[in-house]
Amino acid sequence: MAAECDIIRLKAGASTPTDVFGARANTLAELIAAGFHTTDAWAISVDRIRAIARSDFPKSWPFADRLNRGELFSLRSSPVVRAWGGPETLLNIGMTGVVRDRLAQTLGLEAANSLYCRFVQDYSVQVMRLDEEEFEEVLAGVKDDTPDRAKALAACLDYYEYEMDEPFPQDPIEQLQNAARSMASAWMGTSARILREAKGADNDAGLGLIAQQMVLGVGRGESGAGVGQFISPRNGAIMAHGRYLSQGQGLDALDAGNDASFLGADERGPSLETLAPEAFEQFHAATELARQVFRDDMRLEFTVHDSQIFVLDAVPAERSARAAVAVMVRLVEDGIKSKREALLGIDPRSLNEILHPQIDPKATRDVLASGIGASPGAATGRIVFTASAAQASKARNEPCILVRVETAPDDIRGMHSAEGVLTERGGITSHAAVVARGLGLPCVVGASSLDIDGRAKSLNVIKTGVILKEGDVITLDGKTGEIILGAPKLVQPNLSGSFDTFMSWTKDYRKLGVRANADTPSDARLARAFGVDGVGLCRTEHMFFEENRLNVMRELIFAETAAGRESALNLLLPMQREDFIELFSIMQGQPVCIRLLDPPLHEFLPRSRDEIRHLAEEMNLSVSKVTSRIEELSEFNPMLGTRGVRLGITVPEIYDMQARAIFEAAAEVQKKTGKVLEPEIMVPLVSANREVEIVRARIETVVSNVEDATGMKLKFALGVIVETPRAALRARDIAKSVTFLSFGTNDLTQMTYGLSRDDAGRFMRQYVAEGVFPEDPFHTLDIEGVGELMLMAASRGREERPDLTLGLCGEHGGDPVSIAFCYAAGFDYVSCSPFRTPIARLAAAQAQILDSKATA
Amino acid sequence: MAAECDIIRLKAGASTPTDVFGARANTLAELIAAGFHTTDAWAISVDRIRAIARSDFPKSWPFADRLNRGELFSLRSSPVVRAWGGPETLLNIGMTGVVRDRLAQTLGLEAANSLYCRFVQDYSVQVMRLDEEEFEEVLAGVKDDTPDRAKALAACLDYYEYEMDEPFPQDPIEQLQNAARSMASAWMGTSARILREAKGADNDAGLGLIAQQMVLGVGRGESGAGVGQFISPRNGAIMAHGRYLSQGQGLDALDAGNDASFLGADERGPSLETLAPEAFEQFHAATELARQVFRDDMRLEFTVHDSQIFVLDAVPAERSARAAVAVMVRLVEDGIKSKREALLGIDPRSLNEILHPQIDPKATRDVLASGIGASPGAATGRIVFTASAAQASKARNEPCILVRVETAPDDIRGMHSAEGVLTERGGITSHAAVVARGLGLPCVVGASSLDIDGRAKSLNVIKTGVILKEGDVITLDGKTGEIILGAPKLVQPNLSGSFDTFMSWTKDYRKLGVRANADTPSDARLARAFGVDGVGLCRTEHMFFEENRLNVMRELIFAETAAGRESALNLLLPMQREDFIELFSIMQGQPVCIRLLDPPLHEFLPRSRDEIRHLAEEMNLSVSKVTSRIEELSEFNPMLGTRGVRLGITVPEIYDMQARAIFEAAAEVQKKTGKVLEPEIMVPLVSANREVEIVRARIETVVSNVEDATGMKLKFALGVIVETPRAALRARDIAKSVTFLSFGTNDLTQMTYGLSRDDAGRFMRQYVAEGVFPEDPFHTLDIEGVGELMLMAASRGREERPDLTLGLCGEHGGDPVSIAFCYAAGFDYVSCSPFRTPIARLAAAQAQILDSKATA
Repeated sequence: MAAECDIIRLKAGASTPTDVFGARANTLAELIAAGFHTTDAWAISVDRIRAIARSDFPKSWPFADRLNRGELFSLRSSPVVRAWGGPETLLNIGMTGVVRDRLAQTLGLEAANSLYCRFVQDYSVQVMRLDEEEFEEVLAGVKDDTPDRAKALAACLDYYEYEMDEPFPQDPIEQLQNAARSMASAWMGTSARILREAKGADNDAGLGLIAQQMVLGVGRGESGAGVGQFISPRNGAIMAHGRYLSQGQGLDALDAGNDASFLGADERGPSLETLAPEAFEQFHAATELARQVFRDDMRLEFTVHDSQIFVLDAVPAERSARAAVAVMVRLVEDGIKSKREALLGIDPRSLNEILHPQIDPKATRDVLASGIGASPGAATGRIVFTASAAQASKARNEPCILVRVETAPDDIRGMHSAEGVLTERGGITSHAAVVARGLGLPCVVGASSLDIDGRAKSLNVIKTGVILKEGDVITLDGKTGEIILGAPKLVQPNLSGSFDTFMSWTKDYRKLGVRANADTPSDARLARAFGVDGVGLCRTEHMFFEENRLNVMRELIFAETAAGRESALNLLLPMQREDFIELFSIMQGQPVCIRLLDPPLHEFLPRSRDEIRHLAEEMNLSVSKVTSRIEELSEFNPMLGTRGVRLGITVPEIYDMQARAIFEAAAEVQKKTGKVLEPEIMVPLVSANREVEIVRARIETVVSNVEDATGMKLKFALGVIVETPRAALRARDIAKSVTFLSFGTNDLTQMTYGLSRDDAGRFMRQYVAEGVFPEDPFHTLDIEGVGELMLMAASRGREERPDLTLGLCGEHGGDPVSIAFCYAAGFDYVSCSPFRTPIARLAAAQAQILDSKATA
Repeated sequence: MAAECDIIRLKAGASTPTDVFGARANTLAELIAAGFHTTDAWAISVDRIRAIARSDFPKSWPFADRLNRGELFSLRSSPVVRAWGGPETLLNIGMTGVVRDRLAQTLGLEAANSLYCRFVQDYSVQVMRLDEEEFEEVLAGVKDDTPDRAKALAACLDYYEYEMDEPFPQDPIEQLQNAARSMASAWMGTSARILREAKGADNDAGLGLIAQQMVLGVGRGESGAGVGQFISPRNGAIMAHGRYLSQGQGLDALDAGNDASFLGADERGPSLETLAPEAFEQFHAATELARQVFRDDMRLEFTVHDSQIFVLDAVPAERSARAAVAVMVRLVEDGIKSKREALLGIDPRSLNEILHPQIDPKATRDVLASGIGASPGAATGRIVFTASAAQASKARNEPCILVRVETAPDDIRGMHSAEGVLTERGGITSHAAVVARGLGLPCVVGASSLDIDGRAKSLNVIKTGVILKEGDVITLDGKTGEIILGAPKLVQPNLSGSFDTFMSWTKDYRKLGVRANADTPSDARLARAFGVDGVGLCRTEHMFFEENRLNVMRELIFAETAAGRESALNLLLPMQREDFIELFSIMQGQPVCIRLLDPPLHEFLPRSRDEIRHLAEEMNLSVSKVTSRIEELSEFNPMLGTRGVRLGITVPEIYDMQARAIFEAAAEVQKKTGKVLEPEIMVPLVSANREVEIVRARIETVVSNVEDATGMKLKFALGVIVETPRAALRARDIAKSVTFLSFGTNDLTQMTYGLSRDDAGRFMRQYVAEGVFPEDPFHTLDIEGVGELMLMAASRGREERPDLTLGLCGEHGGDPVSIAFCYAAGFDYVSCSPFRTPIARLAAAQAQILDSKATA
């Protein structure tokens, strides 16, 4: 049984807690308290609405006398959380024949009849659940030749009576009570419940209602209704944005399309500013006031009556990520928000939109098919089917999109040359997706509705039968996963101005380092431009896929003698050294963490028959010899094979060469700058400390050789990339040999789940859709499983070595939830692809701000 | 500083703790205490030997007067643990010109000179470290035309003096002290230290010495020396076995080859029994006494002087595994050992030898090449290169050996038909190895020095250039990994008699269950014959590789509609049901744990061009269609792909069919026997509890459908095979949905290490050889890593459900160390291939006996 105080008049000083009366009632109360011009309103509490759903109505409504006097009311939902939505607003409650007659005296009979007619219709459909379409048919069948719309009104009233077996209710309280009960019941209904549970609502989520005296929006002088804000939702510029419908009610303006007016003066059509400059001025002033009251730019819902504005509701202004950043910066500059609050005001993930070109939202999209959006941004180019075609295309300065069934490491050269990547297979963390994110290339993977035939050089859209050939132009939307025919207009990102200002604030609230994964000097330059704290992962193998190096690598693999291996390594050494000299120079003394060679050797070998023949020619070997070596090196499960430190131990010359290149480069840069460098060397795929000891011993030999040769004192830090569950379990052992651990969460997730990134695409979508996994664990760190191993490793490692440095260098390094986890776990840094570092920096700052809030 | 009591006379009542005086001294003391006929002996303590190494000799030797009186002594090592070895024995200490003269009076001058000459030589080489070969050369250069060997002796003495710059020492105490110091130093030396550390010795492992009055073994009447036991080392039969050398000393008999005599009368040559029956009788009596004293059959070292036997040492008799079992059974029957002791007296791993045929140890081996011995036993047959050729060969009743580069699941039919399997690639846990152990087939894998060409049907021994063709006969030794040309004689196993008796004892000391992995009814029958406690793992996929089922499975994979899938499943259902009816019937109510389909679908598809064409014909499809479907299903890392429960959830009809087959079979068998069955159903590759919940819900639907259709009440137990680290970490969640967890340690090891079984062969040998891993973790459970995950899962699971059943069903289920681990962790059972269950039963009993000893 709800108490009488369950319905209160909204006025300055009235207490309207959100959990009692809902969020919208609370907003309206703030508007009233702040002196906004509006009409009288009452809030009906969540408890009362629950009672009303059981037809337990209040003994008396505090505004009953007004209704009975002929005043009209609106009834609007006020859910406890706005995002949960709620039943549709019902306007004009209290409308009866008597009221119509009275209104006719001021508005004229036609307007009064129209209002009454509309109310009968709304009430019938929203409250009595009559069929809307049938109602429309009835009205369409009326030949209304009267100027006062009397016939139409009569048809409405007749149809109501026909359907309901009773005349349209002439008691305003009956109308109110039925409307309230209907809204309460709709809220409790199954479909509304499912919808809001998807948004995180509890089973017993509460709904309040607001009953507010109507401002008609029709009638004398300039009257109408509108919705608007005073910033551009696209870029945050200060300008009126919204819609207004003269002689309209409620949200009519939004439904009116081109019949609605602009708010500010606009050459494209009429506007509130031209129709009623004083009302527009009031609207502008109201947005200014709302910005002060709600400490954010707001979108207002308002009614105009005789050029006088009434504000009915306020919600945060619509904004793109770019606009949001501009808004936050201005709020700080205007002293309205603190920097901390501004930093919390942006969802880090939304920055993705800013960091890449986008398809112009106004452009039309001729969508061919959809896959998984795996790397954000849009890219347009001609289709190519091979890495070499991509390189050729780039040489001709012709943008291209690399289209493959799936990509392999030797496609990297092609990916470097392409504007975007499209694959038929693979998931969010397939090779194509990971590399594309690293390169900042838009990428769509797992487009299983395409049949890509590299040999026939055709891309077949299975459903429609459309066949595209090499050279046809397509556009990828790496966010939605859409593959679009042709070249819709793209919008370029702008990272200066407010974005730059905003990002500069993160550093004051962030102790968690954010490094970039950078495999090449050009990656490193990009990382510097993004303002990172160092390189967290330099995957040296990518250096070997470049141009003429791949051939030398292959010579190494085919060498049958130690001398042959040595001669290949002697060719690779100066190249590696140059890489590192450039890398160290670019990073100007910031930490650089280099991972020793990781992939199995067969990844460097060709797979197509043409490439094998070509290699045989170059090596002066028979095709069968080349083929048999390839077969010899092939593995059932390359991810779990002879790679990483296993290769480093079984063919130790490779790590020796890499260590030598690192130290010779460090010596050279030290000589130039006069500053001591301490390269971080990271050992991959470790599962036992003995592996690290063996590598450490060899590296120590190399470093002392280079010290002898150069006469310089050299330093280095040794670490392990924790990728196997066993390395996590044995972290205490391993910490005896290293000073840092960096979690390679891609591989660690693979092994903890027993799930290959490259093969997960086949079922992951179904798994996530059916809730088997709450999220793709390659996308959002699996805190419960992988996370537990990380915490275990962190605490075991630090038991052995309290100053052990801890980092994360998987894809998760750019994921806000994972970053918050790393912050909480006391990690030193995360590392992700350069394009994701702004997201990581913001997420790291947010984690720290929220933490200081929690502890304050 | 060692005390005077550091040298004690060995006699009844003297205390000779092993850690003070070493193991051999302790044995000799027991021999003396038991009244064995021997000579006076003194033990020199470990502390004293350490002092002697520093030239800190005792002020006086308690037997100095005897030495000075001209008695000769031997000095033998007495390490604290026998297995550590020790410096070589030195005989005849105290020999000088004076003693030689005295001995000449009784032995004659020739014998006396020979003894002296030999001593000079031994002393020079063993104590003074002169070069043995040079000494031999000197002697060979002597033209000794005297009958008394005076010239040879003179040459020895001269050479000594020439090398040492002083005459041969004539002071027996000096001889003794130098000998003792030399033995002590040798013991402390690096090479001895490394050797014994490999056997598990501490850094400061102790050595004692025994000084014992010599019985010369040369001279009047029947004199000599021998070593022997009274059981056959081959089969344990009661018979004299050993060697005796008339007029020999120490272990001369062992070095004498064909010049030595037998012990018991033997038609092949002279024997102690014929030379001196009374001495032989004394030897026999001594073995009987030793058996009582040491409570085991012993091998004795003895000297005969004038037909009188002197026992010098006793060690456990040499024995093969088969002999060992016979010995233990007889010791129990004779009331000498308890059953518990007898069970502890056999190394479980050694039973492997008994369970399979072996190459006759006497046969000559024409070894072609070597690989990794992956499944014990020997097998002879003609070479075949394909599974179908193996089947054809079996049809012709012609034993064959299946020879492949590597095997895949569809080779199973061929493996069933072959006597043994040989592969060029793979490690101890490759597909070939695992399946072969399961089938009890001898198997050699990773024979990388072979070049096997299936297409050319040739096996090329790379080094020698020998080329074998289909039909050539080879023999595999699955223990040593040798590949032998032709057909050496094989010895068949005999599992009745003492083996049976021995194994029957295990059940009284074993609460850890031992189940068998059994995929087919014939496996199950074998398991029953081996006396197991149930089936711990029935891998249902193996059922689909049989004969015509594979085709139906392929139809299922190629079905494009739900109806097509259903029709294929309808064909498979009765076959599966028959499998389970047979399985349940054979197991007679013992638990049967069935794992739902595990491998990825592409494993059921052909790979060779011929097979693909054949399949295309059968399916009435084009080759390109078949090929593209195969490509579509192919995976980068099949081990980590769409298999196990992932397949069960994405194509749920398969598990539905399997569950239905299980329950219909259970209903049928229940009806026949009247006893309620409770099949155990196990879900593979789980990484989250939600997966189990989904499968459980579907199984519950199936069971209630079958209950409705049959009118019977049916039961089942649901469990998870813990194969991913995440399943171990989340065991508490998972235990909400299941009543048992069985650890699939093969896969769990793979994922914990990030290491594929099939690809590990490439580097595992080097890794183990270099001590990177102490053992192959697929062979011996990695207690530190995988074991920790298991313990974690066990305790978390039992927190949630205290009566949770825990098992292990990987290859480790047959490994004694792993079994002891499971026992200690409170597991309920282990499961392994039928041929390994005797090993597991013995290991389980031993773990329990040792535990009760520890707690008693």
